[in-house]
Amino acid sequence: MNQDQPRLAFLGIGLMGLPMCRRLLAAGYPLTVWNRSPGKTDELAEAGAVVAVTPAEAAAAADIVMLSLADTAAVEEVVFDSRGVAECGEGEGKLLVDFSSIEPGATRRFAATLAARNGMSWIDAPVSGGVTGAEAGTLAIMAGGEEADIERLRPVAACLSQRLTHMGPVGSGQVAKVCNQMIVSCNVLVLAEVMALARRAGIDAGRLPEALKGGFADSIPLQLVGPMMAQDRFEPVRWHVRTLLKDLDTAVGLSRSEGSPVPLTGLAAQLMRAHGAKGNLEADPATLIRLYLE
Amino acid sequence: MNQDQPRLAFLGIGLMGLPMCRRLLAAGYPLTVWNRSPGKTDELAEAGAVVAVTPAEAAAAADIVMLSLADTAAVEEVVFDSRGVAECGEGEGKLLVDFSSIEPGATRRFAATLAARNGMSWIDAPVSGGVTGAEAGTLAIMAGGEEADIERLRPVAACLSQRLTHMGPVGSGQVAKVCNQMIVSCNVLVLAEVMALARRAGIDAGRLPEALKGGFADSIPLQLVGPMMAQDRFEPVRWHVRTLLKDLDTAVGLSRSEGSPVPLTGLAAQLMRAHGAKGNLEADPATLIRLYLE
Repeated sequence: MNQDQPRLAFLGIGLMGLPMCRRLLAAGYPLTVWNRSPGKTDELAEAGAVVAVTPAEAAAAADIVMLSLADTAAVEEVVFDSRGVAECGEGEGKLLVDFSSIEPGATRRFAATLAARNGMSWIDAPVSGGVTGAEAGTLAIMAGGEEADIERLRPVAACLSQRLTHMGPVGSGQVAKVCNQMIVSCNVLVLAEVMALARRAGIDAGRLPEALKGGFADSIPLQLVGPMMAQDRFEPVRWHVRTLLKDLDTAVGLSRSEGSPVPLTGLAAQLMRAHGAKGNLEADPATLIRLYLE
Repeated sequence: MNQDQPRLAFLGIGLMGLPMCRRLLAAGYPLTVWNRSPGKTDELAEAGAVVAVTPAEAAAAADIVMLSLADTAAVEEVVFDSRGVAECGEGEGKLLVDFSSIEPGATRRFAATLAARNGMSWIDAPVSGGVTGAEAGTLAIMAGGEEADIERLRPVAACLSQRLTHMGPVGSGQVAKVCNQMIVSCNVLVLAEVMALARRAGIDAGRLPEALKGGFADSIPLQLVGPMMAQDRFEPVRWHVRTLLKDLDTAVGLSRSEGSPVPLTGLAAQLMRAHGAKGNLEADPATLIRLYLE
């Protein structure tokens, strides 16, 4: 073990956390892991990770404590419960890095509370790129926090990500992720309108993604859901309506708290809710074409 | 002159037509040109083009008659006026290729009327890629028409375009262009919401385009207008609010005629109109951030 390397803890071994931990272990970092359902940590234990029984125990053994959790409530619980990260003892000099996508306002409150409780610093560092990006180490990380803390994270993050962008103070990474999701979700909903209209107008809608490739209208979602929408092919399910709805609701909440109008995002949130409410929350967003074409 | 090469006519020597004609001449095609304001054809005459006095005269001298005009009304006039293309004599065996972006329904009517009048075939072939693409020969062409006519166009179009996609019968190219513009215009309007919200939320909005590059939210418009919106920099004017509004209105009209709902596009049209009505029709779409942040 290289004594210069920070000791890491990773809390939340899910679809994203598991491949991220594999990469951290492969890079030689000493790693303690924790997950609510303990079975998920077995593979990592075999690969050399120490398995902790509580978040507090994992955090006590680490210099940098990483989180990859489902939502705001899960982060609050793992950090502030009676066996949470905040109970790890002296936190001064320790760094919490939250890779989860949660509410920006909650992030600022959590960071302030944790600093007051035990002196630990907070970086919000939500990622984009999905499981594929986590496996390949090509995630984009949008980070908020103190410059010095970000610089401390950079060498470790290098094995997870080709791009870590410092967006501003604590919470800024979550705001950037909201921005990312506003663009993606609105685009997918517009694609549903476009593909339904194209099919009704009698053109070969299946050729649109190829025809528009490389141009102003091109995007990864066009190439991903465009062909599925053209063919009424809704599997494999690669991502979920539920996630897009959660992020659109966060965007609308941020719009309200910042006093900044988002009319298209507001309509998008309600269209996404209309689709989700018809039993499509776990479906692929390609199913959004059904809003307009049965 | 190669006798196998079709004789070409090009009507409408504007920002797009001029560089397209330069490329056709450079490829060795015999070319007759016409423009409403005659001065625009001087450079092409020096490079070997014949200048015609009327659209009918230009079309009489050609096997393939190409149009690049401002809007539906201009195409109708150039084709059906008393000195228009339809008055060129026998049209059987001749091909009209309309590179203009006009209404799909009007395109179908024009094609039927012209075929009945003198037997000439119609391909609608609107392009994407702008002046830069026209100069570099990298336009994307979305074409509607008969398969045999499209195949006849392909070798000629090869010097203008890396990609010519056959979208279906006459009018399908125009529908595809409307689809392209729906995606682009809605995206630019969402970017205005996003950049205003990001700035109000206190993050370094100027880093968003870089942070999101290569991900699901990335697009040419993000990289183009994102930095301008972040810095309140509205020049150089690369494209116009007027164009996006025209195309959104065409999309809403198509939605109505096809009975296919486009709620986000409908709102986008009205937001674009609100911005245009405040004196911004000739401004760059980056100014759309002013809808939300003065």
